[in-house]
Amino acid sequence: MDKGGRKMSLGKEAVGRKAADFVEDGMVVGFGTGSTAYYFIDEVGKRIQEGKLKHVVGVPTSRRTLEQMKSLGIPDRSLDDVNFIDLLVDGADETTRDFNGIKGGGGALLYEKIVAQNSRRIIWIVTEDKVVDTLGKFPLPVEIVQFGSWKLFRKFDQAGMNPTFRKSGEDNLFITDAGNYIVDLHLDEIPNPHQLEFELNNMVGVVDHGLFLNYPDTILTSNSEGTLDVITRN
Amino acid sequence: MDKGGRKMSLGKEAVGRKAADFVEDGMVVGFGTGSTAYYFIDEVGKRIQEGKLKHVVGVPTSRRTLEQMKSLGIPDRSLDDVNFIDLLVDGADETTRDFNGIKGGGGALLYEKIVAQNSRRIIWIVTEDKVVDTLGKFPLPVEIVQFGSWKLFRKFDQAGMNPTFRKSGEDNLFITDAGNYIVDLHLDEIPNPHQLEFELNNMVGVVDHGLFLNYPDTILTSNSEGTLDVITRN
Repeated sequence: MDKGGRKMSLGKEAVGRKAADFVEDGMVVGFGTGSTAYYFIDEVGKRIQEGKLKHVVGVPTSRRTLEQMKSLGIPDRSLDDVNFIDLLVDGADETTRDFNGIKGGGGALLYEKIVAQNSRRIIWIVTEDKVVDTLGKFPLPVEIVQFGSWKLFRKFDQAGMNPTFRKSGEDNLFITDAGNYIVDLHLDEIPNPHQLEFELNNMVGVVDHGLFLNYPDTILTSNSEGTLDVITRN
Repeated sequence: MDKGGRKMSLGKEAVGRKAADFVEDGMVVGFGTGSTAYYFIDEVGKRIQEGKLKHVVGVPTSRRTLEQMKSLGIPDRSLDDVNFIDLLVDGADETTRDFNGIKGGGGALLYEKIVAQNSRRIIWIVTEDKVVDTLGKFPLPVEIVQFGSWKLFRKFDQAGMNPTFRKSGEDNLFITDAGNYIVDLHLDEIPNPHQLEFELNNMVGVVDHGLFLNYPDTILTSNSEGTLDVITRN
């Protein structure tokens, strides 16, 4: 288990650092959130410090990512301060080979999706164990308004969607950067993600959810030895 | 103008106080927000104080309504503390005779809609000038996440939806009880509200909007002389 974790961490580092090759001088870059995006941010910061990348500015998708950017001296802009993002590099918790995925394990799905909406090119960086045929083994995060949240939880429960509230420590509920709760739906499999997206988008109290359908242009994968592969659209 | 305002205020008071007749002992009542709901809350408070209504508890749809309830001694519960709401009485900014409306002029649309979702019976109380054939003269409020809000504003603008940010005083943007912004869409008319609802529900960054389609069971109206009328479903 520990060994596997270390191995996957090697894969995360390989694919995260590799993605920095797609960053060019002068780009506005969107920085994702999570343990794989961490290495991408670190590598871009390193290349800026070494003078290998110039005039790059970054838009963070979470407070956590912003802090890491600041610590590395990557100039940050808010989304509203840039016209658009040239390249967004972000992780994913699950992805199919036809560019549908689940994100939000790190709790930043809402800002990640808003940044993605304003990005010209999106690269997902994942270890190969996250590439699946059918989505849903990974619990689907749904960001919901605090007000009336137990009522909404009950609706998910009654619909057989096996909801759990995301916790922060033992006794507190996790609160997103936008001030909402997250409910994780343990669905096991999602045979029709577009249908589920439609249902979630139309539920009152749902702010957004971790289904990212047809978002990335490129998926960069790594196995546990750090061997890389690329999935691109035809 | 001033006289018209005073006249309509008479209509608001008439219809607001009349709605209290629908409240029965022991009910869990949802209390709306706004200048017409104000009179309903006031009347229910009066009847409780006079002993004419017993064991009524209320669920507020905004902080403002909660304050008024407290000042009148109406026992309050949060939505998550009750099983369901027996009767929700709320205003509307526009309504058709087939039970579609626009709400949110007071900025409480999100909580109003969440409470409505958990109500067994809904009565809208309006002055007759708010009953229209086609929705849209009243600007449609859309509650949006603060993050990336100018980007979303530009999308509304480019789609020709004439957005304006809701202000609070001269220099500040209005912030909802849930911590979001409101953009008002000046559409003039909404020929197909269901289509627009679909589009808004599927926009990333939109938390909710003021289209309440097929919500009320009963619409109680008053003209400026205080003469009442009822629109009920067949």
